[in-house]
Order: sequence, then C-alpha cells, then structure tokens
Amino acid sequence: MGNTFGQLFRLTTFGESHGGGVGCVIDGCPPLLELSEADIQADLGRRRPGQNRLMSARQEADRVAILSGVFEGRTLGSPIALLVRNEDARPQDYDPLRDVYRPSHGDFTQEAKYGVRNWRGGGRVSARETVGRVAGGAVARKLLETECGVDILGCVERIHAIQATLDPESLARDVIEASPVRCPDPQVSAAMIAAIDAVRADGDSLGGVVLCIARGVPAGWGSPVFDKLEADLGRGMLSIPAAKGFEIGSGFPGTMLRGSEHNDAFRFREGRVRTETNRSGGVQAGISNGETIVFRVAFKPTATIRKPQRTVTRDGQETTIEVRGRHDPCVLPRAVPIVEAMAALTLADHFLRHRGQTGRAGSAF
Amino acid sequence: MGNTFGQLFRLTTFGESHGGGVGCVIDGCPPLLELSEADIQADLGRRRPGQNRLMSARQEADRVAILSGVFEGRTLGSPIALLVRNEDARPQDYDPLRDVYRPSHGDFTQEAKYGVRNWRGGGRVSARETVGRVAGGAVARKLLETECGVDILGCVERIHAIQATLDPESLARDVIEASPVRCPDPQVSAAMIAAIDAVRADGDSLGGVVLCIARGVPAGWGSPVFDKLEADLGRGMLSIPAAKGFEIGSGFPGTMLRGSEHNDAFRFREGRVRTETNRSGGVQAGISNGETIVFRVAFKPTATIRKPQRTVTRDGQETTIEVRGRHDPCVLPRAVPIVEAMAALTLADHFLRHRGQTGRAGSAF
Amino acid sequence: MGNTFGQLFRLTTFGESHGGGVGCVIDGCPPLLELSEADIQADLGRRRPGQNRLMSARQEADRVAILSGVFEGRTLGSPIALLVRNEDARPQDYDPLRDVYRPSHGDFTQEAKYGVRNWRGGGRVSARETVGRVAGGAVARKLLETECGVDILGCVERIHAIQATLDPESLARDVIEASPVRCPDPQVSAAMIAAIDAVRADGDSLGGVVLCIARGVPAGWGSPVFDKLEADLGRGMLSIPAAKGFEIGSGFPGTMLRGSEHNDAFRFREGRVRTETNRSGGVQAGISNGETIVFRVAFKPTATIRKPQRTVTRDGQETTIEVRGRHDPCVLPRAVPIVEAMAALTLADHFLRHRGQTGRAGSAF
Amino acid sequence: MGNTFGQLFRLTTFGESHGGGVGCVIDGCPPLLELSEADIQADLGRRRPGQNRLMSARQEADRVAILSGVFEGRTLGSPIALLVRNEDARPQDYDPLRDVYRPSHGDFTQEAKYGVRNWRGGGRVSARETVGRVAGGAVARKLLETECGVDILGCVERIHAIQATLDPESLARDVIEASPVRCPDPQVSAAMIAAIDAVRADGDSLGGVVLCIARGVPAGWGSPVFDKLEADLGRGMLSIPAAKGFEIGSGFPGTMLRGSEHNDAFRFREGRVRTETNRSGGVQAGISNGETIVFRVAFKPTATIRKPQRTVTRDGQETTIEVRGRHDPCVLPRAVPIVEAMAALTLADHFLRHRGQTGRAGSAF
Repeated sequence: MGNTFGQLFRLTTFGESHGGGVGCVIDGCPPLLELSEADIQADLGRRRPGQNRLMSARQEADRVAILSGVFEGRTLGSPIALLVRNEDARPQDYDPLRDVYRPSHGDFTQEAKYGVRNWRGGGRVSARETVGRVAGGAVARKLLETECGVDILGCVERIHAIQATLDPESLARDVIEASPVRCPDPQVSAAMIAAIDAVRADGDSLGGVVLCIARGVPAGWGSPVFDKLEADLGRGMLSIPAAKGFEIGSGFPGTMLRGSEHNDAFRFREGRVRTETNRSGGVQAGISNGETIVFRVAFKPTATIRKPQRTVTRDGQETTIEVRGRHDPCVLPRAVPIVEAMAALTLADHFLRHRGQTGRAGSAF
Repeated sequence: MGNTFGQLFRLTTFGESHGGGVGCVIDGCPPLLELSEADIQADLGRRRPGQNRLMSARQEADRVAILSGVFEGRTLGSPIALLVRNEDARPQDYDPLRDVYRPSHGDFTQEAKYGVRNWRGGGRVSARETVGRVAGGAVARKLLETECGVDILGCVERIHAIQATLDPESLARDVIEASPVRCPDPQVSAAMIAAIDAVRADGDSLGGVVLCIARGVPAGWGSPVFDKLEADLGRGMLSIPAAKGFEIGSGFPGTMLRGSEHNDAFRFREGRVRTETNRSGGVQAGISNGETIVFRVAFKPTATIRKPQRTVTRDGQETTIEVRGRHDPCVLPRAVPIVEAMAALTLADHFLRHRGQTGRAGSAF
Repeated sequence: MGNTFGQLFRLTTFGESHGGGVGCVIDGCPPLLELSEADIQADLGRRRPGQNRLMSARQEADRVAILSGVFEGRTLGSPIALLVRNEDARPQDYDPLRDVYRPSHGDFTQEAKYGVRNWRGGGRVSARETVGRVAGGAVARKLLETECGVDILGCVERIHAIQATLDPESLARDVIEASPVRCPDPQVSAAMIAAIDAVRADGDSLGGVVLCIARGVPAGWGSPVFDKLEADLGRGMLSIPAAKGFEIGSGFPGTMLRGSEHNDAFRFREGRVRTETNRSGGVQAGISNGETIVFRVAFKPTATIRKPQRTVTRDGQETTIEVRGRHDPCVLPRAVPIVEAMAALTLADHFLRHRGQTGRAGSAF
Repeated sequence: MGNTFGQLFRLTTFGESHGGGVGCVIDGCPPLLELSEADIQADLGRRRPGQNRLMSARQEADRVAILSGVFEGRTLGSPIALLVRNEDARPQDYDPLRDVYRPSHGDFTQEAKYGVRNWRGGGRVSARETVGRVAGGAVARKLLETECGVDILGCVERIHAIQATLDPESLARDVIEASPVRCPDPQVSAAMIAAIDAVRADGDSLGGVVLCIARGVPAGWGSPVFDKLEADLGRGMLSIPAAKGFEIGSGFPGTMLRGSEHNDAFRFREGRVRTETNRSGGVQAGISNGETIVFRVAFKPTATIRKPQRTVTRDGQETTIEVRGRHDPCVLPRAVPIVEAMAALTLADHFLRHRGQTGRAGSAF
C-alpha cells in the first residue's frame, strides 16, 4: 500500500536498491504528448549519485527504458512503464546491517511493520526509491510545460546555517544548475560546498531547506477542502526521504505578521486580477490564484553517518554502529530534482482533475 | 472533488455556512464501537465560536444528530451520517461581499475555479466547514482510544511572537483546556490573551503555531513511500483553513543540527526498542516507531480583518474593503480541536490499513 | 466501506430504513448546472413504494431536501448533500426478525460480517437504501442531458416467463411510464400485471429482466482495461439489491452466434463511423462507439415472501418463518429507475474522467 | 486511467503486445508470503498461446521475472513488479491494419478516445494485456490459499451450443486440466474440440460460457451496498476481453423461478449456519455466506476472423477486410485462467478490506 501518487495522473513506483531494478508506471497521462527517453533521462541525471564530489560515489548511469505507453514518439493514453536496472550495487556493504538498526533510518520501523525487511540497501527506504518519482515527474513536467506553459524550478536555499537570500520571482535554471549544490548565489554556494566538504571529512552530515516555485499555473487548480493544492503539495514533499517540514508562501515565519501585514492586496493588472504581494504563495483557500507558487521543504541531516552511534540489534542487544558505504553527507543538492518531480506530479494531477470537473484547463475568467 | 479524506476510514464532509447545514458521512468505521451524540458533541463544543470573548461572537449550539450507522448505542459498520443544522446565520452581513474579493480569502479563487461562489459566508471556504471534520474526528478518536489506547492532544504553542516552552511528553488535557487560548503555560497564556485583546481592538489579527502529539501509537503504522505517516498527517493539517506550514519532530529547526546531533539513538527499554531522544517525532521512514508522535502546524493571521484593505471587484474595479461580521481575531484556540480531529482521522485510517495488510493492529514484535 | 460509487462524479450514500433518514452526498458535480429539488423528486417518485397496487403498500412521500451545494438554483461545484427523512416506518413489524434469519436475505451475512445488524428493517440491506442512489442518479442524469444530450431509459422486458419483444432503438419514455409495470408492450404489460396479482395473492414473488439503454453517448467514454464501460456499468447494476446477472449487447444469447454472425460491420453514415448492427451494445473494447448503449439486468424473485420457509435462529435453532410486513411481490417495476440511476452515475463519472484525460467531452473525430 | 484493480490488494498492469513487454505491479500484498517465479509461471503457462492446436500458434514462453518486492523467497510488503518480455511479435502482420478498423474490435474506439492507437497488435486491446492479470492473480491466489484455504477453479461449461452439465460442488482441477478445452466432461470436451476445429477451418470463431467457483471463502467478505462481492466480481469479469455477460448463482435462469422456489433455506450443519441449496451462489446481500461461490461469464465469439468483413478506413472509405495473423478461433480455453485470476484478485482485495475494518479474516461467528 501507499506506492501510488495521484488520482487522475497516477504514478505507481516499485523497486528496491538491490534487486532487478527500480521504476514506475504512469497511468492517466493524456495521449499525443511527445515523449522520449531523453526527456526522462535529463532529470534522472540530475538525481543520480556521483555527479560531483559532494555526493555518494556510487556510480549508476540510471539508464531508463520506456517499456510501454509510447508509440512513434507520442503517448498513447495507456500506462507508461519505465524501468531503470540496478547496476553498481555492492550488497556486501550491507552485511553488517543484517541484524542491527541504523539510528533514525527505516530499518527498525520497516521490520516492526512487516516483520521482515530487505536489509541489503534499505529496501523501499532508500534514496534509490526516488528514481521512479523523478522518472514519473519528468513526464508530468513535460505535460505541464507543453499543455499549460507551467515551469517548475527548485534550488537549495539553506544548508545548515548557511542561507541564501533569494527572490522566488527571479530564479533561473541555468544559474542554479551551474552550482554543484544547486544554490543560485555563487558566494553562498561556495560556502555551502565548503561546509559539506568539512562535514564529510568528519564523517557527519548536514540538512537544510529547498525552495521550489511553479510559474504559469493558472488560477483555479486545487480544491477548497481536503485536496487543497498546498495540502497535496505538502503530502508530496513530506513523502520524500528525509523531509521533516513543509511551508507554503509565508509559512512559519508568516505567523509573526499581523493580518494587515500578511494579506495580499488584490490589484487589476495586465488584464487580470493579481496580488501585490505573494505571501499566499500562489494558493488561496486551496486553489491556485495565478501567482507564482512558492514553497519550501526542510530536510534533516542524512541519517547515515560514519561516526559511531549507539543502537540495538534485532535481538535486543545494545551495541555501537559505524556505517560504511557510499552516502551523501548532505542530500539537499540531489533533493532538488525530487522536489520538482513531486511538484510536477501534484500539479499534473490537479490540472486533469480541474479539467475533468470544469471542462477548462484554467481559470473561469 | 476533494471532500473525502482517508482510504479505509473515510470521511466525506458537506455543507456551507449558509444553507441547510453542515455535516459528514463516515464510511468504514469498525462495527460494535460504542458511540453516542455526546461523544461527538464534546469536541464540537471545543470548536464552536462564542466559547469566550477571544472568539467570534457567532452563537451556534452546533447540535449534532446521528442520522445513521448507529443502532442501540453501537456502530453497525455502515455509514455514519452526522448533521449539524445552521442556526445563527446572518446572511445580510455578507451582502457587501457579493461583488468584491476579500484579500487572502477564497472569494477570488473559488470564482476562478468554478465560475460561481456562494458569497453568503464563503461557501466551503468557511471556518464552519470544519464542523464535519471535528464531528468525524471525534468518531476516529473514540475508535483509537477504545481499540488502541491512542491519545491525541493539541495545544497552542505560539501566538505571534509569544511562545511557550513546552515538553511534548508532559502535556495534559485539563491544563490545556483550563486556558481560554489552550496554552498550558499560565503566564504565556495570559500574555497571549492580552495580545489577542489588543489586536481585536485594533481590527487586526494574529497567527501562530499549534503543537499536537499522539501517545500510544504502536510501531508499524504508515508506509515507506508516498503514504508516509508524516505525509498524510501533513496533508491533513495543511488542508485546515489558514494553515501555512507543517513540521514533524525536529522540523525546520532540526535542519540546524548535524546528523550526529540529530539522530535518535536506539535503546532497549521496558522490553522493547525505544529511542533516547525523539527528534524523529515518532515516525521514521514514514512508519511510526512507538514513540510519541509530535508535530506542529503554522496558522497565518486571520485573513478577515476590520481594517480597510485594497482589493478589486468582480468587474475589475479597484476599491477598498472594510469587512464587518463576527470573526476570530486569532484562530489558534479553535484550531486545536481541528488539528486533533485531522490527526485522529489520519491515524484511524492508517490503523485500519495496517491491520488490513498485516492482520495485526500494531507492531510485529 | 463500499458506500461510495465513482471516481470523479462520486456518490456516497447513507442511511437505514429505520433511523433518521436516508440520503447521499455527491462530490465532483460540475458547477453551474441548474438543479432544484423538483429535478430529483421526479425520479424518487418513480422509485417510491405505493405507486400502485403491485407494490409495497408502505407510504412514504420521500421528500428530498437539498442541504448543500446549490446556490441560487445552480450547483456550486461543492458537495451536494441530499436528505430524505424516514416517515412510514413500522419498526414493530420487524420484532419477530430480531433473532431469526430470513432466507436469501442479508440478515445472516451482515451479522457474519459485522457481528451486529440493524434488525429493524434490514439496515443497509433494504430497498430503502436505493433512495440515495436514485437521488444521486437524478443529478447525474441532469448533467448528462444538459451537457452531453445523453438520454437514459429503462423498462421491464420480462417478468418470470412473460417476455416482451422490444426494439431498444424505439423505446419511448411515455409509453413505458404509462404501464404500471413499466413494460411498453400493452398486452405483455397486462399479462405481467396479472402474474404479479396472482403471485401476491399466493404470498410468493417473481423476478425478471430490466432492459436499459443510453442514447447519445459519444464515442470515446470508458477505457480499455479494468475500467471498461461495460465493467463499470455491470458493477453498478450488480450492486442493486436482488440483481443476479448483467449482460451488454448480445450478452449470454450472443454466445450462440459465430464470429461472422456476431461482428458489427462498420459503415460510414451521417458523416461518422457507425455500425450496421449493434450486438456490441454500444461498447467495444471497453469504450463507447457512439451507438446506443444496450444492457440487461436479471433480478431474482423477491426474497421476502409470506409463505412459510425453513430457517435458523441466531442461536442455531432450526425453525420456520412467515414474514409479515409490506413487501413488493416483484421488484422489477421499481427497479427501473434504480437501473437508470446507476447507469447515469456510471456514465457521468466516465464523462468527467474522459474529459480530464483528453480535454474533450467526446470523440476525437 | 483504469489500469488499476483493487483497493487494498491493488494490481496495476501495463504493456502492449508489441513493445518492451507486459507486466504488472502488485501493491498491498501482505508480507512474509512465500513466493517464487514458479508460482506465477504455472498460471502463465495455462494462459499462453500455443498450448495446443486449438489456440493461436503464436509461441511465447512468457517467462516472468520478479523485479521487486520479494526477498529471500518471501514477500516484503512492498510492491511486487513482474515483467514478461515480448518475444514472438510479428509486427508486419499488422501493417494492413494501420488505416482500417477491424469490426467489433477496439481499433475504432481507441482512436475515438485517444486520437491515436498502437496499430501494431491492438495496443492495450490485446489478449496479451491479460498476462499482467494472470501474473497478479497468481500472487492473489497464493495468498488466498495460504492464509485462508480458498481454492478457485474455473472451467468451460459451454462452447456455442455444446453444453456440459456440471455440478459446481464436484469440479476437480486435474479433470479440467486434462481437457484441451478445459471442460471436465470428456464427451462434451471432445465435441467442443470438434466444433473448434471445424470453425477454425472455416475461418470463423465461437463463443461460450466459463463457470468458476471459489471454495472455502468464509462468511463475511464483501459489503452490502456498492462494493457487493458479486458487483466487484462482475466488474472484474466484465473487464476481461470479449466478456459480454456475468451472472452469480442462479443468474438469468433464476428469474424463471418463484421466490418460494428460489430462496435458499438455512440449516444448522457441521456447527455452522449453512444453506440447503445454493441459488445465491455463495453471496447474499453482497456478502459471502460461507457456501461455494459460483458464477458464470459469457464470452462472445472472437472478433478477429479470417472471413472477409465489411468495414471502413480511418478516412471514412468503406472497404472489405480479411484479417491474417495468429488468432484463437475460440478464447474460452485460455479465458479460464484469466477468469480465475480476476476472481483471485477480487477476493484477495475483499479479504484485506474485511480484515482492515473488522480485525478478523472471516466470520464473526
């Protein structure tokens, strides 16, 4: 249970880090969308380990194969199955983990739930699980770009205490991607890199905050009660490994404002209703208002560290663990394409749901 | 769309603040649970306006009627329909809002989505919509208490900049409920009351943070990918009107720690695996670990304020609005039972889903 | 569980025959549809008991109240809650049924499932449960008529061995409704009436077959695998109390033809692709083909009869039962509006799902 | 949309007959079930073409690979992905079908819905699509056998007018499987074979009826309104290619009985409540009653025949078609394992749903 995301644009993912592979099935994608493996490979390349020295040294090309749902370069409207074979697995790295629980990892809880776990690599609780999300998200992104002109863009805003001051409206993809940590401020980016280098040398890890925006979402997506756009975005983000918090627009800091300071005044600009400020983050009462969608996701420091930690074994013995293997000392740079993928999946689903109920792709105005 | 919450324990709500009433249908509740209207009325009483001078003066007894699903004092396993009639509606209060959009409210977005809105009271974008949540949540809470010994408890941790320092493990319901703002620290509570009084006099509003815990959740609820327990809790909380942020355990502040500082060491205590600290907030890799579940929800300052604000009319004219009517200058005290309700609904659903897949109510150990 | 029907146009029903009432919540209805209680009352009037001497003498006006979702005569896009109060309940009629299971009724199975049942009236296993279906179906029908020009029409084709020979293409509502048994052939109708009169006098009951058509469905609704249009229609029909069989187009008799006799040749007529014959029943490979949809539903003879029957008590004693109360000796005439309602609900849902995925209400051609 | 079946035990299938392969993802399977590729291969072998001269000569070994969800021979509780590569595709066979619609096939309706189709092999409208169903059904069957002792068994009861007289209670798998047409009556089986041989020689096709039973289902599975067990079984069966009808228990013929003849008297036998007869087919009011579940599925004659047929081209020209390729003149023998698979999937889902709501695998008694 729980491996499907979305109602009309539905992603189902599968696979463990050690096994036949990881992948996904996308059901409900509109027909006639131009789609090739290259469209998907681009985002997988941004997610894969080994992009630079800040990341896990694990080397996986993560070559995706489209197994179904595409014919003569266009989607058929039938399920799109995508498969990425596992390659650079080193299962022997995991032998010491067979009978011991890594702190703040999913070893113990998986075993408590199921009575069993794939101790070679963490099973479904592995960064590798996100391959299916990013592959599916690439299809959602292509749909949103092509049919709605929506552009989704994430970056690293903070690592540990090193924070960039960013204007969501002026983010640009090439500037972000030019930074090894995906932070568009060059000076802050350099400081972040230094911090990650230091913590890696120390066998420790860091967390931080990803900022993500979606431009071009028309007014009208989402709904006013349980399936608020921010609720479904939040669910998508909080389902990413290591995510501990989500905020839309003004978020937690916005609680320090008075209503008269926080409200976004309406103006009539460029032939449509606009807000002067965007503390709402592009969503009001669960429905997009035509402004840029802005949200943030908090990621805890990577649980897997080299430093010795106290823990217990499966049979209840207290022990100390020093985890070997190839792990990211900071997941933030690789989390950016995952955040974007979950945003694309959420928005694509709400696009189709809105179109189903109203017959329109966007606003009634 | 979007008026149903949950997969096995499913709540569907309906109703506008001005119309025949508000209510809900609960489908999937286990049979043979003792249930009476009094069980539900208690939580509705904590949610209703007019409890004290800090809240909207709207007077509604919010009497709930069980229309179906209960027979001779016990649930049948069939749908439980609950109805609360509207009583103290003053629709004339809303006449000035027919053609103008209140800033940071749902007037504009509802109309952009549907091409129509119930301008008498905000339609589904009304605090009154939450009656169905709280009624349904009361049934979920009763189920969790009776079958699993789970206790859910919320309180106000911060209003504007006035913050209580609270230990989640030592919260007590009677202390919380003794405070008109539902803050268990008497001194902080008094300061909060003063702040709300001041802002109300000024025609303005305040936001803040609700802290909520769930004690007694066994290890094993939730699942490791999209339906992580924190993801579904987050979705539930972010679907509450005025919520702008959610965090589990260490949340956003936890990103300032290193992995070695953040990880929760495992120990073997009281015959079972425990963690020494609880920065995970009771959930690891999407699955409960048997510790107290701890999360926080950020609420923005109430959008409806008396101060004049700039906005536009339906036909695109720029204007100024001064909203009359009976509104809460701070939603936090009344948000507490709503947060608890959404927590109960989320946990009840995951309880049944876990039991369906594994045949056990709790942990495999 | 199991009280919701549909994915985008979703009906949730509630209520027992003895309790506060029966009703439904419709979620996902498009906005701006003109809708009044009169639209719904018409179909409820065709479903209610006591329409003529062939039916249960139970007298219930079945007055529907729209509690939410409609504003100034049009739908809002929010949930439409409909309530019908119970009136002519005679719970004492059911006292003898407290501890005994009526043969081929749901008394035993409900108790086996839930460990409890509402023995006053059968609980959810009551013809009265269908009020919510018919009320919801009336909204679906209005939507289909208004937005798509779809017309749904059912009639009684056979009662026991008395069969009408009907051409699905030439059915007319007024002719059908002029017959107390809803059979458009006057002579066959008279014979059916005589048969029902005879069996009622004998304390026994009859079954039969309902024929239903939907005209004006465009090519393209449905999907080719699990959610075939005939599969979802079949599920809807087989969920009606007393239904034991479903067939689309040529159905069971069509298995007596060879492929060369059965296939529907394509022709180009009136500017579009048509079939010369319609053994497919308007659906090919799960998707409507633009021809009239034609299907049949088999209803068993009413389980509740006055004749003495052998059965057992809750504590395992063998006994004999003679059921009193006011029951239909043949459900077929009243089943017609229920069949139409389930057809309307199924088609409305597939209309919205098709529009969501493709952006079109109908065919790509 | 529409490629997922089930709510707790969920099957998602993918793949076209010409492409990378066909397969499925099973989500929600309980953990710790022993499962190997051999368990799945057995049923795939019963479904594959080329088993004998009565079937399509297409030769595909249909080797299944378990990509995920199984570890050290047991299920993990995570998604089980199964893949069967396409092997013996002869796409050139389909070139003549690029611009013409085969009568009573899905060529036209797929194109009407999506505006595109994979004309090489029919896309999702291909017997090959059922590989994913049978693979998933094999896992469901293993679960039901292991945890509940449920045994599901199908056979061919009728081909064209050649009918076997079978007692559902005495069916035996080895006798059925000993017949090339899967009919347990040797004389009838021989007549069926002769009929298929004759029609194949003639370039024509035949339909018929599959009978299926499930033994050992406890009382209590299913629910009393929309998700009746017979409704979900019916949906599953009507979703199989070429299915045109479904009936449970007495079905259509049962409408020729009076209530006093049709009702199943209750008796107390072997320490539990039993029925003397089983016209209900093991389900009453949507819930299993502990008797053998008995249902039938009508399959039309194969649409693809060699005889010339009149049809139209994509640009509206009337033409004649003679379909080449390797097709079954009668799908019934190969439909048996598909019917069993859909029954297993439906029952496994209701098993888990019942356990989720009630905490019991079976009856309350």
